[in-house]
Amino acid sequence: MRRWNGWGEDTTEVELPAHGAEFLHALIGAGEPLADATLEQVLARVPASRLPAHPQVSLDAEDRLRHARGQSLPDWLAMRSGDFGVFPDGVAFPETAGQIRELMAWAAERDLVLIPYGGGTSVAGHINPQHGERPVLTLSLERMNSLLEIDAASLIATFGPGANGPQVESQLRAQGYTLGHFPQSWELSTLGGWVAARSSGQQSLRYGRIEQLFAGGTLETFAGPLQLPSFPASAAGPDLREMVLGSEGRFGVISEVRVRISRLPDAETFYAVFLPDWPRALEAIRSLAQARVPLSMLRLSNAIETRTQLALAGHPEQIALLEKYLALRGARGDKCMLTFGVTGSRVQNAASLRQARKLLRSFGGVFTGTLLGRKWAQNRFRFPYLRHGLWSAGYLVDTLETATDWSNVDTLLNRLEASLRDGLADAGERVHVFTHLSHVYGEGCSLYTTYVYRPGGSYAQALERWQRLKHAASRCIVDNRGTISHQHGVGRDHAPYLAVEKGERGMAALRALAVHFDPEGRLAPGVLLPE
Amino acid sequence: MRRWNGWGEDTTEVELPAHGAEFLHALIGAGEPLADATLEQVLARVPASRLPAHPQVSLDAEDRLRHARGQSLPDWLAMRSGDFGVFPDGVAFPETAGQIRELMAWAAERDLVLIPYGGGTSVAGHINPQHGERPVLTLSLERMNSLLEIDAASLIATFGPGANGPQVESQLRAQGYTLGHFPQSWELSTLGGWVAARSSGQQSLRYGRIEQLFAGGTLETFAGPLQLPSFPASAAGPDLREMVLGSEGRFGVISEVRVRISRLPDAETFYAVFLPDWPRALEAIRSLAQARVPLSMLRLSNAIETRTQLALAGHPEQIALLEKYLALRGARGDKCMLTFGVTGSRVQNAASLRQARKLLRSFGGVFTGTLLGRKWAQNRFRFPYLRHGLWSAGYLVDTLETATDWSNVDTLLNRLEASLRDGLADAGERVHVFTHLSHVYGEGCSLYTTYVYRPGGSYAQALERWQRLKHAASRCIVDNRGTISHQHGVGRDHAPYLAVEKGERGMAALRALAVHFDPEGRLAPGVLLPE
Repeated sequence: MRRWNGWGEDTTEVELPAHGAEFLHALIGAGEPLADATLEQVLARVPASRLPAHPQVSLDAEDRLRHARGQSLPDWLAMRSGDFGVFPDGVAFPETAGQIRELMAWAAERDLVLIPYGGGTSVAGHINPQHGERPVLTLSLERMNSLLEIDAASLIATFGPGANGPQVESQLRAQGYTLGHFPQSWELSTLGGWVAARSSGQQSLRYGRIEQLFAGGTLETFAGPLQLPSFPASAAGPDLREMVLGSEGRFGVISEVRVRISRLPDAETFYAVFLPDWPRALEAIRSLAQARVPLSMLRLSNAIETRTQLALAGHPEQIALLEKYLALRGARGDKCMLTFGVTGSRVQNAASLRQARKLLRSFGGVFTGTLLGRKWAQNRFRFPYLRHGLWSAGYLVDTLETATDWSNVDTLLNRLEASLRDGLADAGERVHVFTHLSHVYGEGCSLYTTYVYRPGGSYAQALERWQRLKHAASRCIVDNRGTISHQHGVGRDHAPYLAVEKGERGMAALRALAVHFDPEGRLAPGVLLPE
Repeated sequence: MRRWNGWGEDTTEVELPAHGAEFLHALIGAGEPLADATLEQVLARVPASRLPAHPQVSLDAEDRLRHARGQSLPDWLAMRSGDFGVFPDGVAFPETAGQIRELMAWAAERDLVLIPYGGGTSVAGHINPQHGERPVLTLSLERMNSLLEIDAASLIATFGPGANGPQVESQLRAQGYTLGHFPQSWELSTLGGWVAARSSGQQSLRYGRIEQLFAGGTLETFAGPLQLPSFPASAAGPDLREMVLGSEGRFGVISEVRVRISRLPDAETFYAVFLPDWPRALEAIRSLAQARVPLSMLRLSNAIETRTQLALAGHPEQIALLEKYLALRGARGDKCMLTFGVTGSRVQNAASLRQARKLLRSFGGVFTGTLLGRKWAQNRFRFPYLRHGLWSAGYLVDTLETATDWSNVDTLLNRLEASLRDGLADAGERVHVFTHLSHVYGEGCSLYTTYVYRPGGSYAQALERWQRLKHAASRCIVDNRGTISHQHGVGRDHAPYLAVEKGERGMAALRALAVHFDPEGRLAPGVLLPE
């Protein structure tokens, strides 16, 4: 069963290897485990609902509890402490667009707040109900998860918005297709959520971001349904899909999604290469991106992340052998691990691999074959489970992400890591910080930074530390030409920083659209556009 | 000097070859040349301006005349007949964003209509002033044509909005870069115009449409400047660039454009292949697109266009030899010409060519080497000049374009060609119609249809025939799942059909944005959103 207070199915456990615990202990001190509340304790705290009965709405305490929080670190602290804050007054599970419209009409009639809910994997506070006079109805789309139609000639598939990653891929693969969209949250996150929050998958280099995959569909708004027909491309005025992408529930509820799919590739292989140091590694990955070598994935860990990954991998003897081999070939203490994939026809893959190897060798890259690449592919959705292992060992882990132009990557990365590393210095606490670049473009790339810190003995302390770190890092990002999010969206946590990049005029235009579609401000108030 | 009543520089003349004239005569009858008005005659008709003097505004009759019309067929009929309709009351030539803002303030103060003007190449009525009580000021951006900055690491260039194709490319090539955006109007059309009308270049397969090239910039609005910083990608809410792309002057005046550029490629070659018939040709081009073979250009003429091109090419002896060669290899009367390009590194180009040849051979493709491809590349911007040759011979030519999903290409193409071919049947007139597909995507492609008809002895008759053909074709497009424009924009000519694809809700949202940015409706009224 899905965990009520953490990530994924409770049958999957990922523990922190002993070697990894020692590594962290040496870096930031002994872990400080916090005590978890039990489900029974939390259920006892769920208040009475303010909603009347409705045939499609569950007022059940456990349903409400299970839809109250996402997966951000503050969400974890809330769930683990049992101090959830606000619960929705009810959860609806519509099965058709018609039922979504009925529920919206009911919300208008009863003066409710509505929160569209996909997989509940937000790490930015998209789906958390807030205190207020209006009752809150969460609208879970999980039952609208079917593949409705495939246009085989045009490679277009139509889905319900609630299909999660495995539901999308299994229904497509049965017919020989793939969407190719694999965010780390893939096991739980949904198509509608990807569209609403502008998701990016690990193989976006081949398949594109959700912006490129989203061909059309329907948004149910309080002004009526916005129907988006699909065209391969159009010059017929502003692209209305772009109002839905990133709308984060503020303009309406996505009731149908048409996506661009691909035939399953002939072949796919992932490789790992070690570059001797960060300057050469950065130059190499930029060159690969700008030379348009047709790869399907590129991920470059900085030296600290490379060391951390090797430490947390377990198997210390095998890692020692690998390190010896790499050192002999010039990749020593500052080495950076680059993972890349080729996907497609065998002829094209061979040509891509040849180009990539040639270019990487010119920067001192040492190839290690396909073993580490295979490991990456096997474990690509495993990281969120590792949070449990770290939690049990008494360490808190969070991630941040942004994107910036190549000319600014080094500056932003250094400042961002420093803002976190030194963020708790006045409390005498060390923070372990590391980064990888995982989505590359001609213009620049994403930066994905992980930080590990100690909770400080109490939930209150843990949250206060997170707030300081998150604020310092967010401020650092927007003050240094980064976007406040490359792939997680804005939600509530990033909303205070959004105006720096959108500008006063941009924020006003988005507000004008929100008022146009939802004059009563019923949909996810406070998300995206701060109140 | 640039022609005042036609396309391009008056030093370039393209005549219709004798063989081509016979070909058209046989198909639709003898040409019927119309008499042209002279510049003096038209200048005498320019009325007095309603504007007071302003240091940046020209009230000169010839300036006003030269900014009154675009390049659509009705524009040609207006210019050639001398019956221009409405002239702008003045033309401003700002040199800075500050001057644009001053002119906008002046327009507000004096209650003027403002028409942003790039290269004046619109074929959909974007820049034509209309009758009305408010004086009309056309805002030409031609003096803001400089390359302002290059970020070499991020491959981003910042330009003034008025740089035309040659100005963009010459300033970039001097430093080893290219934008790679080559619409057929390239010699005259401008960066700001490409953004405002969502242009697509002939090599969009490699470089992307203007939507992918436009990284950011500034839109001067009546609510203040909308600044769009550039990020490689972002999940920070709806993408505001998409409000500027396709805004067609309705939301503001583009004062600066940041674009994604590329290093000049190592190598580039174009090839011509003949497919034996349309069904196999269509399947071949779809397969190439969906297999993601990294080509830089794909253009497939249907059988009628192939015949027409070979007839209009001149050199009948050489063409006869080619036809003999092709017939021996199976490409006879129904053959379709496919031109494709490879651009990039030599290793990649070789791999792409190998994949393309293999795939095309499996559909019966006959390769003819690089001669016809070279010819295409040499003549790629020449077609608009041929309108003069056809005009002199007494034939009118116009083009239409749309895009649709692959599963619908054949249906739409057949209906679209029929709507034009039979469009003047009740007058006993034949219309010569042919089509190519020139922008391909995984989901579908663009259709670019050319039609040639006789003016019927008078300008009034010529215009009436055009209106009937244009309406029939536009209706056919939107009623058959085509977009009203793939690359030319909406303007006034397509505005009446836009609501079919945008829907009532979409049109209302766009109007809400127009009112938000320009509450007095001063900017290009009637363009994009019908009045």
